[in-house]
Amino acid sequence: MYRAPVSEIAFSLKHVAGLKEALDEERLGDLSEDLVDAILEEAGRFATDQLAPTAEIGDKHGTPLKDGVVTMPPGWKDVYHRWIEGGWNALSGPEAYGGQQLPTMLSVAASEMWAAANMAFGLGPLLTVGAVEALDKHGSQELKDHYLAKLVSGEWMGTMNLTEPQAGSDLNALKARAERRDDGSYRIFGQKIYITFGEHDLTDNIIHLVLARLPDAPAGTRGISLFLVPKFLLDENGAPCVRNDVFCNGIEHKLGIHGSPTCTMIYGDGKHGDEAGAIGWLIGEENRGLACMFTMMNNARLNVGVQGVAVADAAYQKALAYAMERRQGKAPGDTGEGMSPIIEHPDVQRDLLTMKALTQAARAICHACAHAIDHAHAADGDDARHWQERANLLTPVAKAFSTDVGCQVASIGVQVHGGMGFVEETGAARYMRDARIAPIYEGTNGIQAIDLVMRKLPLSGGQQVAGYIAELRDIANAVTVSNREGLGTTGERLSRAIDDLEAATTWLGEAIQAGRQQEALASAQPYLRLFGLAAGGVYLAKGALASDEDARVALCRFAAENLLNETAALKISVIEGAGSLIAARGALTAA
Amino acid sequence: MYRAPVSEIAFSLKHVAGLKEALDEERLGDLSEDLVDAILEEAGRFATDQLAPTAEIGDKHGTPLKDGVVTMPPGWKDVYHRWIEGGWNALSGPEAYGGQQLPTMLSVAASEMWAAANMAFGLGPLLTVGAVEALDKHGSQELKDHYLAKLVSGEWMGTMNLTEPQAGSDLNALKARAERRDDGSYRIFGQKIYITFGEHDLTDNIIHLVLARLPDAPAGTRGISLFLVPKFLLDENGAPCVRNDVFCNGIEHKLGIHGSPTCTMIYGDGKHGDEAGAIGWLIGEENRGLACMFTMMNNARLNVGVQGVAVADAAYQKALAYAMERRQGKAPGDTGEGMSPIIEHPDVQRDLLTMKALTQAARAICHACAHAIDHAHAADGDDARHWQERANLLTPVAKAFSTDVGCQVASIGVQVHGGMGFVEETGAARYMRDARIAPIYEGTNGIQAIDLVMRKLPLSGGQQVAGYIAELRDIANAVTVSNREGLGTTGERLSRAIDDLEAATTWLGEAIQAGRQQEALASAQPYLRLFGLAAGGVYLAKGALASDEDARVALCRFAAENLLNETAALKISVIEGAGSLIAARGALTAA
Repeated sequence: MYRAPVSEIAFSLKHVAGLKEALDEERLGDLSEDLVDAILEEAGRFATDQLAPTAEIGDKHGTPLKDGVVTMPPGWKDVYHRWIEGGWNALSGPEAYGGQQLPTMLSVAASEMWAAANMAFGLGPLLTVGAVEALDKHGSQELKDHYLAKLVSGEWMGTMNLTEPQAGSDLNALKARAERRDDGSYRIFGQKIYITFGEHDLTDNIIHLVLARLPDAPAGTRGISLFLVPKFLLDENGAPCVRNDVFCNGIEHKLGIHGSPTCTMIYGDGKHGDEAGAIGWLIGEENRGLACMFTMMNNARLNVGVQGVAVADAAYQKALAYAMERRQGKAPGDTGEGMSPIIEHPDVQRDLLTMKALTQAARAICHACAHAIDHAHAADGDDARHWQERANLLTPVAKAFSTDVGCQVASIGVQVHGGMGFVEETGAARYMRDARIAPIYEGTNGIQAIDLVMRKLPLSGGQQVAGYIAELRDIANAVTVSNREGLGTTGERLSRAIDDLEAATTWLGEAIQAGRQQEALASAQPYLRLFGLAAGGVYLAKGALASDEDARVALCRFAAENLLNETAALKISVIEGAGSLIAARGALTAA
Repeated sequence: MYRAPVSEIAFSLKHVAGLKEALDEERLGDLSEDLVDAILEEAGRFATDQLAPTAEIGDKHGTPLKDGVVTMPPGWKDVYHRWIEGGWNALSGPEAYGGQQLPTMLSVAASEMWAAANMAFGLGPLLTVGAVEALDKHGSQELKDHYLAKLVSGEWMGTMNLTEPQAGSDLNALKARAERRDDGSYRIFGQKIYITFGEHDLTDNIIHLVLARLPDAPAGTRGISLFLVPKFLLDENGAPCVRNDVFCNGIEHKLGIHGSPTCTMIYGDGKHGDEAGAIGWLIGEENRGLACMFTMMNNARLNVGVQGVAVADAAYQKALAYAMERRQGKAPGDTGEGMSPIIEHPDVQRDLLTMKALTQAARAICHACAHAIDHAHAADGDDARHWQERANLLTPVAKAFSTDVGCQVASIGVQVHGGMGFVEETGAARYMRDARIAPIYEGTNGIQAIDLVMRKLPLSGGQQVAGYIAELRDIANAVTVSNREGLGTTGERLSRAIDDLEAATTWLGEAIQAGRQQEALASAQPYLRLFGLAAGGVYLAKGALASDEDARVALCRFAAENLLNETAALKISVIEGAGSLIAARGALTAA
């Protein structure tokens, strides 16, 4: 069973991402290290004791839909109420509406524990946080006063309605429509798919945030508006009252996260109410809906990256426990009686070390991204712009690298279990199934890679990424001069990985500048992986330097001498691979 | 829906693996190229038209167990009867018992199509073929006469009973026991787990091959004997008659291959029959059971490798079809109306090309292994020994590299589908679930890597692998001197990959010789991957040289310039990574 790795998360935040510095420089308000520790400790306890035991039940029971009603798995309503009572839903919400408004570093740390304990459960609150952000930043005072406090507390939950059958990655093709009404409200019509927690019985109301087009809107994404559409309209006291014309008419049967209802939502099909259309209210300005969505989408992407870390860590814990207990064969050097625990076999050690190193590397990247967000919030002017750019640069890496790591690590976890790994009862396979959604939703990892290359590398004319790489190099140099026993050739390996990252970055910058867009796009995926490996390897080293634990040093060296070698291969794929890729297009459809 | 890639398989067999040469040199008896083509064509038709439509049903229904009876999915009994009638079960069986005794190259080619169309279904006949081989090679004339014809035809099916809860990869710990009876029969007692097709309703009888220990057997694997235990004992006419004391008392709920019943089998629990114990007969000599098992295990390992190829190909076909149909966004250079098919996006092209190249590379390795087996059968003396060694060398690579490719490709296939990939209805996720067992069973891929390094590299004092690498180098040189347009830097990349393979091979040879066993074991997994990539890349080039298709040339170059770069990283992990791995053991269990 999963146990939240509270001290490891705290270490990563404080000594790798820079939480300690941020506290010392009083960038995080009146937050103290003691309070940070207390919150992490309590969150870890809730995740371990309350959430983790509900995951398998959710996987087994799923969320059946009958007559428009979705029934959540047994026991989930109870644990959700304890979740609200514990104040866990309100961690990041605005203080003005009852939230604790904690820094992103802390909310991300907590998110990891929720997702590791029960990824399907954690998704609902994750979406609600997104709705809170969008509403808080762009909603009218009236909308905020009606909805925000209850979304912050968790008494109600929120959803994000973007996708339609023909409009997934490309929202240009969005068709849902909205009509203005004289009283300032709107009527919403259309079908939305893949709506997470679109319908359920955990809360008395569900607040849908819906993208739709006004009749006179420009074509494309500049003609999309964002609306708030509650499941139940409110009475004069703000209590849920009349059922709105939005219904779930289908639930997806998915590979994983079975406890999270993925709904098809029908808005305004005319069967309900006097006048056609679901009743909604505009958030922000007309035709500026996508901008509203994007403000919160960055954080959502980071949080999905954290899901990758979370599942990886949970999968690692399970595999480690199994490897310590399961005995097969005789490991080299084992002179004892009987069979050896499989953890003593070098190839199993390679599996476990790879899992652990990749998990910590991905976690550090997510934490560094969260740190940049928090720094941007605390800063002004150029400083704020710099840190916001840093957050923007790291977001696609945090999302895509970490979720790929989630899948990779969960799959190795299955392998470590041998035949038991393929049996669902064991639970290792569930992690693999759950992890598989994270590279897909909130922008596929392919799109993250394109975002990184086409929109993030050019930030500040390339100076943002150049500055970041220079910081990585400083750490690598510190490793080299440290002469720390046990680090082996880590410094040299890190330097080479950074060289690879720099060369690939330069090449991409030139390709984009020269209008060789197709080549840049073709190289985006290996570039993102290269970025993640180099940054992750450096962060492991930063942690090793900041610690006196031999284990941390040894893990860092293992990663440097085994996993980081891949950066050279990726660099070549980036720089020299695109031509052959473009030339091979015909090979896909040749007879 | 899957369509068997008959012409691609035929090309790989004839021009990459050497089937054409073998036919020309009359190494395959009276088999003609026309007959080969006709068999492949017909097999492809059966796989495409008959088997493929039954896969989804099997996945959904599974194989429920009730009162010891396992019910197979709807329609499977029918298709199994058509399978027998078509003679497909008898492809590789001995002629003396009604089989067609076709070369391994052909049976492997057919196996791929069965597994791609319906992996769960194909498993039953695969196990039966294993039982046929063991019985044919080691069984007494009487046993053969009673059982072999019906196993060859498929009227009955066979199973392999090795695993017990405490004895998986390590059969030393095997506990099932056998007792001699005066009439030459034995009584078998014990529990076996993970028994594929251990119980079902497809056939009137099931012939279990069971490993067990005699009371006076030596400890360890030298005290294990192999027994034939039929579900129904035969009457004097050879017809199933009295129920034997072997029952299924549990079915695993698995991640994939839901249509394949994975059974817990109880032998001789005493509740049935007058005298305790399931009745069985010895196959081969007492205490030599493992040797009997191993004769067929090599072929089984190759066939599992082929499953990896199969699922990869099926997943590729599905992803390709989706990418051609699904429209999102605007690809660079697309000046048409509306959104582009996603196949026009360079990052999706990278996904699809990677899938296709890895699939063909893995297929070629499996075919090369099958070719070696056939060559060994046709040859005498040193020649036979050479080709048997070649088969032995390639078997772990065929098994592990191909099944890893199966998982990797199926996962990319899910990704290409975006959100649809996570929805079970689409079918992409099923491939990913089904594929995941193949790196685990018939010896985990970790064990394959150890087998390759510790037992196969030393064959003929290292001359076998050295000769193989020299052959790869000849092909790479041919590429370089061909100056074939479109191959780009392929020759150079192949040479580098072979250099990496050679360096890693040399290092491992020295490590083993020097008794640095732990280091060799630690490096086994990256070495096997390196071996597979280098060999697979070379085989793609061999195919390109043998063909006038531009598409084949372009795909080969794509692989060389994008996928083969990884060999350098793997070489470093092999040669320089083991030390840090061993040093990091403590990092796994540190507080």
